[in-house]
Amino acid sequence: MTKADIVNEVAKGTGYEKVMVQKIIEAFMDSVKTSMEKGNDVFLRGFGSFVITKRAAKTARNISKNTTIVIPERFVPVFKPSKEFSEEVTKSLATSKK
Amino acid sequence: MTKADIVNEVAKGTGYEKVMVQKIIEAFMDSVKTSMEKGNDVFLRGFGSFVITKRAAKTARNISKNTTIVIPERFVPVFKPSKEFSEEVTKSLATSKK
Repeated sequence: MTKADIVNEVAKGTGYEKVMVQKIIEAFMDSVKTSMEKGNDVFLRGFGSFVITKRAAKTARNISKNTTIVIPERFVPVFKPSKEFSEEVTKSLATSKK
Repeated sequence: MTKADIVNEVAKGTGYEKVMVQKIIEAFMDSVKTSMEKGNDVFLRGFGSFVITKRAAKTARNISKNTTIVIPERFVPVFKPSKEFSEEVTKSLATSKK
């Protein structure tokens, strides 16, 4: 599924025009991104949370040049699906994908 | 930030009514969830991808009862932020949170 597919589904389901649905979905994604860039987590009840997580500094190697570089401590966006979301995916795929 | 905060921001930014924005955002989240429950990954350009990932079976222990249980292989929803999203968060928080 792509963004276009999701827009189509939402437009069909809600009865709103595709153009409007697309604008709102784009604005939603921008709003989540902007919030996280400011360091604010986003909690979406029933869906999940987008949270800022610290990744420890780590050492990486460039094998072809035989050098070592240090990747410093950094913050990355992580999504934690709601319990409901996770359980529904696990449950519905338990039988179908086995 | 909660869903209500995001709805407010999107309504302000786009000029659409809150009620409509909320309905569309709820429908968007439902659409992503339903898609994943069917085993379909969702690719949202510029934002990231929601993908089904297999978790290997693992053994867990109930320490108080001194028993071992096996958690079987299962599928869970995972979000992979776009390179752009990750980099922007890392960059903008590199200075502010240090």
